[in-house]
Amino acid sequence: MPVTNRIADFHEDMIAWRRDLHAHPEIAFEEKRTSDFVAAKLTEFGIEVHRGLGRTGVVGTLRNGDGPAIGLRADMDALPMTETNDIPHRSTVPGKMHACGHDGHTAMLLGAARYLAETKRFKGTVRFIFQPAEEGKGGGREMVKDGLFEKLPVDTVYGMHNWPGMKVGAFAVKPGPMMGASDDFDLLITGRGGHGAMPHLCIDPVAVGAEIVGAFQKIVSRTTHPVDSVVISVTNFHAGEAYGVIPEAALLRGTVRTFRTEVQDATEAAIRRIADGISAAHGATAEFTYVRRYPATVNHEAEAAIAAGVASTVVGEDNVDRNPTPTMGAEDFSFMLLRRPGCYVWAGCGEKTPNLHSASYDFNDDLLPIGASYWAQLAETVLK
Amino acid sequence: MPVTNRIADFHEDMIAWRRDLHAHPEIAFEEKRTSDFVAAKLTEFGIEVHRGLGRTGVVGTLRNGDGPAIGLRADMDALPMTETNDIPHRSTVPGKMHACGHDGHTAMLLGAARYLAETKRFKGTVRFIFQPAEEGKGGGREMVKDGLFEKLPVDTVYGMHNWPGMKVGAFAVKPGPMMGASDDFDLLITGRGGHGAMPHLCIDPVAVGAEIVGAFQKIVSRTTHPVDSVVISVTNFHAGEAYGVIPEAALLRGTVRTFRTEVQDATEAAIRRIADGISAAHGATAEFTYVRRYPATVNHEAEAAIAAGVASTVVGEDNVDRNPTPTMGAEDFSFMLLRRPGCYVWAGCGEKTPNLHSASYDFNDDLLPIGASYWAQLAETVLK
Amino acid sequence: MPVTNRIADFHEDMIAWRRDLHAHPEIAFEEKRTSDFVAAKLTEFGIEVHRGLGRTGVVGTLRNGDGPAIGLRADMDALPMTETNDIPHRSTVPGKMHACGHDGHTAMLLGAARYLAETKRFKGTVRFIFQPAEEGKGGGREMVKDGLFEKLPVDTVYGMHNWPGMKVGAFAVKPGPMMGASDDFDLLITGRGGHGAMPHLCIDPVAVGAEIVGAFQKIVSRTTHPVDSVVISVTNFHAGEAYGVIPEAALLRGTVRTFRTEVQDATEAAIRRIADGISAAHGATAEFTYVRRYPATVNHEAEAAIAAGVASTVVGEDNVDRNPTPTMGAEDFSFMLLRRPGCYVWAGCGEKTPNLHSASYDFNDDLLPIGASYWAQLAETVLK
Amino acid sequence: MPVTNRIADFHEDMIAWRRDLHAHPEIAFEEKRTSDFVAAKLTEFGIEVHRGLGRTGVVGTLRNGDGPAIGLRADMDALPMTETNDIPHRSTVPGKMHACGHDGHTAMLLGAARYLAETKRFKGTVRFIFQPAEEGKGGGREMVKDGLFEKLPVDTVYGMHNWPGMKVGAFAVKPGPMMGASDDFDLLITGRGGHGAMPHLCIDPVAVGAEIVGAFQKIVSRTTHPVDSVVISVTNFHAGEAYGVIPEAALLRGTVRTFRTEVQDATEAAIRRIADGISAAHGATAEFTYVRRYPATVNHEAEAAIAAGVASTVVGEDNVDRNPTPTMGAEDFSFMLLRRPGCYVWAGCGEKTPNLHSASYDFNDDLLPIGASYWAQLAETVLK
Repeated sequence: MPVTNRIADFHEDMIAWRRDLHAHPEIAFEEKRTSDFVAAKLTEFGIEVHRGLGRTGVVGTLRNGDGPAIGLRADMDALPMTETNDIPHRSTVPGKMHACGHDGHTAMLLGAARYLAETKRFKGTVRFIFQPAEEGKGGGREMVKDGLFEKLPVDTVYGMHNWPGMKVGAFAVKPGPMMGASDDFDLLITGRGGHGAMPHLCIDPVAVGAEIVGAFQKIVSRTTHPVDSVVISVTNFHAGEAYGVIPEAALLRGTVRTFRTEVQDATEAAIRRIADGISAAHGATAEFTYVRRYPATVNHEAEAAIAAGVASTVVGEDNVDRNPTPTMGAEDFSFMLLRRPGCYVWAGCGEKTPNLHSASYDFNDDLLPIGASYWAQLAETVLK
Repeated sequence: MPVTNRIADFHEDMIAWRRDLHAHPEIAFEEKRTSDFVAAKLTEFGIEVHRGLGRTGVVGTLRNGDGPAIGLRADMDALPMTETNDIPHRSTVPGKMHACGHDGHTAMLLGAARYLAETKRFKGTVRFIFQPAEEGKGGGREMVKDGLFEKLPVDTVYGMHNWPGMKVGAFAVKPGPMMGASDDFDLLITGRGGHGAMPHLCIDPVAVGAEIVGAFQKIVSRTTHPVDSVVISVTNFHAGEAYGVIPEAALLRGTVRTFRTEVQDATEAAIRRIADGISAAHGATAEFTYVRRYPATVNHEAEAAIAAGVASTVVGEDNVDRNPTPTMGAEDFSFMLLRRPGCYVWAGCGEKTPNLHSASYDFNDDLLPIGASYWAQLAETVLK
Repeated sequence: MPVTNRIADFHEDMIAWRRDLHAHPEIAFEEKRTSDFVAAKLTEFGIEVHRGLGRTGVVGTLRNGDGPAIGLRADMDALPMTETNDIPHRSTVPGKMHACGHDGHTAMLLGAARYLAETKRFKGTVRFIFQPAEEGKGGGREMVKDGLFEKLPVDTVYGMHNWPGMKVGAFAVKPGPMMGASDDFDLLITGRGGHGAMPHLCIDPVAVGAEIVGAFQKIVSRTTHPVDSVVISVTNFHAGEAYGVIPEAALLRGTVRTFRTEVQDATEAAIRRIADGISAAHGATAEFTYVRRYPATVNHEAEAAIAAGVASTVVGEDNVDRNPTPTMGAEDFSFMLLRRPGCYVWAGCGEKTPNLHSASYDFNDDLLPIGASYWAQLAETVLK
Repeated sequence: MPVTNRIADFHEDMIAWRRDLHAHPEIAFEEKRTSDFVAAKLTEFGIEVHRGLGRTGVVGTLRNGDGPAIGLRADMDALPMTETNDIPHRSTVPGKMHACGHDGHTAMLLGAARYLAETKRFKGTVRFIFQPAEEGKGGGREMVKDGLFEKLPVDTVYGMHNWPGMKVGAFAVKPGPMMGASDDFDLLITGRGGHGAMPHLCIDPVAVGAEIVGAFQKIVSRTTHPVDSVVISVTNFHAGEAYGVIPEAALLRGTVRTFRTEVQDATEAAIRRIADGISAAHGATAEFTYVRRYPATVNHEAEAAIAAGVASTVVGEDNVDRNPTPTMGAEDFSFMLLRRPGCYVWAGCGEKTPNLHSASYDFNDDLLPIGASYWAQLAETVLK
């Protein structure tokens, strides 16, 4: 029987928690109320609480005799957006909202914690890892840096994200890359500004920047193995103010997404080489900075098999996609997977749910008992 | 003897007027104090004053018997810039300065007016046209629209601009185009925005816009007669905010400069055709607006010969460049040349003078008696 | 014990056959001597021979009681190249050579046929399919068109290719795409030719064609899902003769490689849209033809598992790569996989062997008993 | 009275000469029969003949007392084309034809020579310069190199070309550039060839070459003064043979046209810089050769005034365009104008005449007496 009965019993409680969190969103590293809430619940369940890793991170530790230690991770932060939903539990904070469902992630893991603390049908240690700042600020990286795995050791670590476009009661998981590495770059093309009617006295950074944008496409189409994945999106192009003035410089910014470090390295090098070569071709100069934000989220073979097996138990094999198409979106759970074997899964939150990061998104409460059951049975399976 | 003696006599007065105007700059259509100053001087010289054409325009009329009417035009407006000069007469108004020397233009024409009113060595009518808003706002166009040439008829009309890069005491003038037509365009490329890691769900307006910038170069290099001049400067490219988000649209803006209407027409059509074609190639759409601001400044044959002859008398033939390279910078005196035969000349203001529109520009007072003498002798020549 | 003992016994015979074929290469649909050779051998082994499918194709049928029918396929054709090897068995025909190892493919399958005819340790029917014209001319497609699977039914069908860069004794196989679909396109950009000094009277097809080449890169980089594979190579660009003459037209030709029909369809449509859009942008016209040559070689799940299992028996599990990186090179065995379930494997022919289609390539005879054993054991496994 | 009466008298003779030459075209440096014809005529007229300068060049010298020496130059060579006209005097040599009217040039100058030898209404020396190989091979340069102006001194030198698109009886002439300098370039982009399905193993010279073609446009549109003229036509792009093979290299060839040496120098440098920069951006290499073929044809001020005056006498001022739009087509008379003051004029040969270098072109015989009169009166004017 898929969803754990006892967890189904407190579906209403999880809904209440989730909506309370939804109404009080807090963004990266500001999760004060949220972490207090989580810590209070864990304490209430009789779980030992450790705070302060990654500033606002909370980790609960539940031991039951000897055995390995498993880490279950949920993220807690909201986004700097204004909610457009007209619902009773809508955000009470203008400019902040839970548009990525981390409220639900937190509630599901709390539900599993309550169940596991009550039932203790496992041998070993469960770590409930509530991390801050998944959205762009690398809260996962910060917890790892602060010594998460040294201070609170685990043998394996697992993550989960709700996934629009998949029905509630579906899971997707595979070994290897599930989500991409995410890098940012800034490219400042400096030419020589001047009168718009006198291009011969100028070096036009708009024309040079535009040529560079075109040339970047060839990194994807000509330089990278066709079977490898890479995305280079020049998402920002800013140059010029007055109609009649050729600007001094053009600022290009963008994101690079890859699954493999070799491709990431080659792409960074190619961007630099192209920016330099084309700038030189036209007498301009290129200033380039490249920041590696999140590594790829790469599931480990054995743990992916375990996760898929547990998902299959919870929702039935027909509802588990064992070969989903990866996405090049990024996830900072990747920092944990770089240190410990583990696996990250997607749990369907409805085929018609608005997209993540949409102003009309709201976590689907039907997923709460399913996700919590997955967490509980995963712990019981790994620590049996 | 080139510079008129009597004019040399009041060089100091002209310097005082010029510096007073310099210290109190007023921008387009706000030339209240300036036009009061001009009107007061003209009245003081015994010249009839007409105000209100082009809002803040001032026209002085000086008659001496029967004969044709000549228009001599100076512009009065300053620029919205902050002066960096540390000089006694520097701008007293932060954010406004005479960076194009219109203070000098006004002072020179006032000097000529005083001389001509005193000496009256001509037969006919001299109109001293002090126009507002030459900088971008088309004060010349507005005076013409308000009936300048109907209410205060002239047979021919003349203009002058101080010119850095030429020594004081040099003139340049030729028949045909001296300065370009100036048009502005806006091009909004709308694609489909979305996640920077998911270009396949988007239509990337940055990539499309960049391709369009590249294709515009071919209008100049392939479509236009090599002997014709055209400049297309995409001076603004604005798209995107977040590193990770492909924007919905890219806004390109720029300027087009031409000498001939046929080239201007063909260029506008080509920009539109290219923007549409390339947008269609990638599934984006292009919204295009094109505004014709100033027509080309095209000197008339006979009047150019007269102006060159007068300049030659004032500064010597060796100092008159009768075949200067035109510039594609624009000038709204062009609106007057469309209605009446006439000629526009450049008068050198020093080889090392900062560029026009530079924050460190200051009109060279040595030019005052030369320019005023040119005006005076031009009137005496045409109305002899 | 991996390699079948009895097959090892006639390694020398297989070498002799292979070298005889190597010395007498015949290209697409001209495999007269080769097919006679194959037919004679099959007859000698007591195997029923069917000729004429795909013009020069030969199929041997070996029955042993009731059971399913399996097809084992080898290709027989050589390439229009001149061999540079200085070896006793080098090509005797200038301009023709076995540079892709089809001589070895033929010899291995003949070896397996001899063994299976002798030993008959299977229940059912084995079809030995010797196809012509794999190189570019679609001999596989022609045999299928001629009714191969209707006249000589099989339940499943298997193929093999020797693979440089993998050691002898290694196999690679996976379910799903192993090799790409291969399409060709011709794109004729017609402008208006004329004097090289008078571009304004012309529409320059070189400039338009060059812009199109650049825009095609965006199909790969912006339009296709980053996880999907697509290659668009404009391999030919031909325009112009005299230095001083802008040509009338530019001819672009190239190849498109994909794994999935949806991507193939979208790519064809995008090429057409871009060629039309950019041509329209510049007043040129685009004439486009697109020919789908070979579909992707996509292994079926169950048969890939069987093939990998057999390979593992022959060379040991450590020598079977069950997740090789696919290549976008093409193979016309794909036509057979579209009609019957089956699987295509790569068999290593040496890490330092020259590349396929190199003028210094020669099939590695060490692979003969391994490949023949794979064929034999595959038949015995499927028909056990 | 414009056309000289005496010249009108032998219009029929000139037609006969012209048609004879037309029927027997000889291309660059092969003008054997033609130069014999010219030399014979000059001798017949009593004019001293000098042969061998520029291999097949012929110069006639006619003296009449003391005075300056003037050179009148006609070109004699035909083109390697096959005539499509069905006329009695059509080319008798397949693959060769007088498609540029040099037959007419020769006949006109012979006509003038006959007249001047008969009438001798001048004081000084007339040199009738019949040059070979104007079409692409620089016969003018060769005559100069061989010491034309040292051995047969002239003070000034004049040229003429018939001009389709202008009516017969019209002349066009101006001081300064009339025709452009013509340079050729070769640009070999070497990448790394390979399999069309494996771009990641290659450096694609087609993609790099295409990007370079696009970037060259910016030399015209961004780097050159808008008032200067420059044409860069990449007229040849050749790369690749097989559909499936990325070629090793792409060969680009083209022509550059300019009026001023500074622009020519800057353009050569910019082409080189762009080719290098973009090649480096993509890991390719560029091999570049640039050949300066013909300099610009630049008329001298005083001689242009003389030529215009003479033309005005012959056809009336209304029929003289004193400010024609120059063309960037090239002419090797430029080599003579680099050494001696002089002037080159266009003489209309009919508004509907086929273009120069058209296979259906035929020189308009109506122009013969006009052109010959221009030559005669020019000599009489300069040597009066």
